[in-house]
Amino acid sequence: MKVGLAQLNIHVGNFRANTDKIIAAIKTAEAQGAELVVCSELGVCGYPSRDFLEFDDYIEKCREAVEEIAQHTTSVAAVVGAPSRNPRPEGKDLFNSAWFLYQGKIQQVIHKTLLPTYDIFDEYRYFEPNTVFQLVEFKGRKLAITICEDIWNVGNENPLYVACPMDELIKLQPDLMINLSASPFSYRQYHERMGVVRANCERYKLPMVYVNQVGAQTELIFDGGSVVVGAGGELGAQLPFFSEEVRTVDVETLRQPITFDLPSPISLIHDALVLGIRDYFSKLGFRKAILGLSGGIDSALVLCLAVEALGRENVLSVLLPSAYSSGHSVDDSLALVKNLGSPHEIIPIEAPFQEYLRTLAPFFKNLPQNVAEENLQARVRGTLLMAMSNKFGYILLNTTNKSEAAVGYGTLYGDMCGGLAVLGDVYKMQVYELARYINRTGEVIPQNILTKAPSAELRPGQKDSDSLPDYDILDKVLYQYIELRQGPKELVAQGYDKALVDRILRMVNMNEWKRYQAPPILRVSPKAFGMGRRMPIEGRYLG
Amino acid sequence: MKVGLAQLNIHVGNFRANTDKIIAAIKTAEAQGAELVVCSELGVCGYPSRDFLEFDDYIEKCREAVEEIAQHTTSVAAVVGAPSRNPRPEGKDLFNSAWFLYQGKIQQVIHKTLLPTYDIFDEYRYFEPNTVFQLVEFKGRKLAITICEDIWNVGNENPLYVACPMDELIKLQPDLMINLSASPFSYRQYHERMGVVRANCERYKLPMVYVNQVGAQTELIFDGGSVVVGAGGELGAQLPFFSEEVRTVDVETLRQPITFDLPSPISLIHDALVLGIRDYFSKLGFRKAILGLSGGIDSALVLCLAVEALGRENVLSVLLPSAYSSGHSVDDSLALVKNLGSPHEIIPIEAPFQEYLRTLAPFFKNLPQNVAEENLQARVRGTLLMAMSNKFGYILLNTTNKSEAAVGYGTLYGDMCGGLAVLGDVYKMQVYELARYINRTGEVIPQNILTKAPSAELRPGQKDSDSLPDYDILDKVLYQYIELRQGPKELVAQGYDKALVDRILRMVNMNEWKRYQAPPILRVSPKAFGMGRRMPIEGRYLG
Repeated sequence: MKVGLAQLNIHVGNFRANTDKIIAAIKTAEAQGAELVVCSELGVCGYPSRDFLEFDDYIEKCREAVEEIAQHTTSVAAVVGAPSRNPRPEGKDLFNSAWFLYQGKIQQVIHKTLLPTYDIFDEYRYFEPNTVFQLVEFKGRKLAITICEDIWNVGNENPLYVACPMDELIKLQPDLMINLSASPFSYRQYHERMGVVRANCERYKLPMVYVNQVGAQTELIFDGGSVVVGAGGELGAQLPFFSEEVRTVDVETLRQPITFDLPSPISLIHDALVLGIRDYFSKLGFRKAILGLSGGIDSALVLCLAVEALGRENVLSVLLPSAYSSGHSVDDSLALVKNLGSPHEIIPIEAPFQEYLRTLAPFFKNLPQNVAEENLQARVRGTLLMAMSNKFGYILLNTTNKSEAAVGYGTLYGDMCGGLAVLGDVYKMQVYELARYINRTGEVIPQNILTKAPSAELRPGQKDSDSLPDYDILDKVLYQYIELRQGPKELVAQGYDKALVDRILRMVNMNEWKRYQAPPILRVSPKAFGMGRRMPIEGRYLG
Repeated sequence: MKVGLAQLNIHVGNFRANTDKIIAAIKTAEAQGAELVVCSELGVCGYPSRDFLEFDDYIEKCREAVEEIAQHTTSVAAVVGAPSRNPRPEGKDLFNSAWFLYQGKIQQVIHKTLLPTYDIFDEYRYFEPNTVFQLVEFKGRKLAITICEDIWNVGNENPLYVACPMDELIKLQPDLMINLSASPFSYRQYHERMGVVRANCERYKLPMVYVNQVGAQTELIFDGGSVVVGAGGELGAQLPFFSEEVRTVDVETLRQPITFDLPSPISLIHDALVLGIRDYFSKLGFRKAILGLSGGIDSALVLCLAVEALGRENVLSVLLPSAYSSGHSVDDSLALVKNLGSPHEIIPIEAPFQEYLRTLAPFFKNLPQNVAEENLQARVRGTLLMAMSNKFGYILLNTTNKSEAAVGYGTLYGDMCGGLAVLGDVYKMQVYELARYINRTGEVIPQNILTKAPSAELRPGQKDSDSLPDYDILDKVLYQYIELRQGPKELVAQGYDKALVDRILRMVNMNEWKRYQAPPILRVSPKAFGMGRRMPIEGRYLG
């Protein structure tokens, strides 16, 4: 059977665009000889639709879109993802469903059984789990259709769910597994995902067509990478990462297993971030970005990524030097924008900063300078950038990295301003790795930016290392605590110094209030700050 | 049987404080003659503990605290709430449990069946639902112990769950129902809660001891109001709202039903907000607040609430007049702080604002003034307030109301600054109601503040009504859309003008990005912005 994989960049809530895109994909696949076209999970409305799903009107629009798409399935069948209503009064009102469309009509509706409710996932907030298992019969073949998480409960020593949908479906003797997914990117997601797909193929001795959503939805970046895997676990087709494609594959005559070399993690993160920026702007209807270029590595990297995403002419760098800026900060920044050929402006912050100090002098009296004056400089920069943004319609890109966000090393309403935090899920050591990746075929980011000691330059001679542990140690402890949920005991058992561990964990927990007001962060790790990590602000635990 | 209701103000993650408080409550109840003491849901660690629950160390600390508490149950029994580990590998790793402690030991652990996962609740994120039903036998009585949501699936035409735990437990012939709750306040929660408790008592013909958490946890305000209700639905005991109490009640010899007049919704909202401010400060270890006093009603109300919560001497008002401030703004503000006897400062914003304009002139050139200059003034105010906050250790209180937050009428990093948004769940018309309530026994808020037309005063002669529909209409449409999830069709069917509805809904949906970076909001309605309302930023639905 020839199956068309429709790996599409869906826009949440944009029913007209999504419906048109799905219909066009059906036509494309049909022209490629497909008998059946498979789309991604909840592809009609987009994933995650979040609380839009609580609006009756939204569910109605999903249904109308499915019906419109069905009209284009006269000679080719299609499976599309959309919510459906639960006819029973008991339980949640919706199912997360795969709609099988053929001969111009809705033929069958299959519901998702396993509803991920952890990290960034909230599915039990909206959906009732399926309890009835059925196949779809089409052209003499029996299809086992599952949705994303449904196949993730296989071969796990500590499974998250009591049920295993494919264990039920296999009893009905299917010929082919089809999975509609919306599986967001993280740098280790491909391995886990392929492990899961292969474990299913091997366990049930069936091929699988796996179709994933592509495109970013604010913080979540869906990487696509849809596959066809044979009954022996061999790779039959591999769709691209981070871009759309419609491809038709004969799943019964898979050629020799193809080989596929996964790009390096750092290049995947790079591509994910570029897509994340691009889609944030295009889906909000914006074109132009602005950012503050400090001479440090974080803003240098954000500029490079934004130029790739939006085009050099659409990214304005603003240099905002102060009395504490070192000479090289401006020179390095100028060298960078020259390398990129992107526009810049210079707006010294000294005059408004001094005016604030004059205004505040009657209250501050002769108290020693402290964090108040440091934050003030960062807020002058934030205010100037936002003024330019408001005047000319730029979106301000935030340049905070994950190490800083973790320990609260940043000024709220200052350098924490912005519409999107590009590096908020990238640790400082990964920032360097990405910068070297940017420079892989020649110097784009000046070497001096890569080698200078990190500094906020908010007081004379300041270095990050005055306030923070060295980034190589800091990042390792943060990774253990944030990504792996290792507590103080486990970290000390790993050999880290107890005082250092306590200090770092305390900084992380005490700064929850600050992260609460941070911009949305492009997620590239298995555990990013934001919607996937939900911590009490007032909690007094390790803080 | 004499049961002690321990309605306690719990601090999330503060095991030492919570354990001491629970042990003290056991002793108090024992002195009152209690045979059994009942605490609130997850009272050992606090509700909601959120992702702290993902740390093994946190669960270990819960267990240690339960064991310590158990040592104080030699002659009196206690039921305390804490997570427990799921011994089966399948399913989530934890249960949300009630631990029955007696004779110095853990005797029995009962798990929660219905896991609320909607609005502000995320319980299926952490917990496996219970499937095995058992009673606790104590002194010849059989106790049906349930946890919060477990009793909420009774007498509902469209029940959220397939299961109904009390329908199972009643088969085992219990003598008494006990419910451990963490049910947060909203202005209509008492009626719903009492309706649920009574429906259970009447359906199962048993009395119920219902113990609720009290105290605020950032945005969530737990109101207490624990009750004992007799088998006929009659009120046997009513504990106070918004304060702690340990009270022992003989549940088998309930006196005549007591009468209880619920305070008015507006007085409940008032008391909730005062507790919300007080606990935010005390649980974070802060004492002093600062706010910008504009001469408008929102900041006037926040000041009054903060003075009640923290004491007049601990709330500094800062007047930040500009060239566009009307004379009465300063006079009215001065009259208010005089009435309250609270400190104030005056910091004119004109000098830094003009300095910004000079700094930006080479870029703004001669473009007409627009929202950029308006936002700039708001950001100068935000920056000055944050500078004072940083210098002297104040927490800045945000004064945005729910109507403004809904339509994005506010400046990010300007008047949207602050650690806590006191009125973010209070519509403008309710702000007036609260202000009149403050003035119920004499003028605290000057009459002129109540009667003047709302204005941001960011350009000459500006009025809110230049940009927004009248608040009485706006608030009604917002309530239908936000609280009741009515869509455009339903609103037009209710008689609202289609163009107006489209305009308002569009403003709400287009400003999700701005609310994303707003401070946490004290929740007093059934649907507040923040953790209970999760909307896509890039979604293009009604926007």
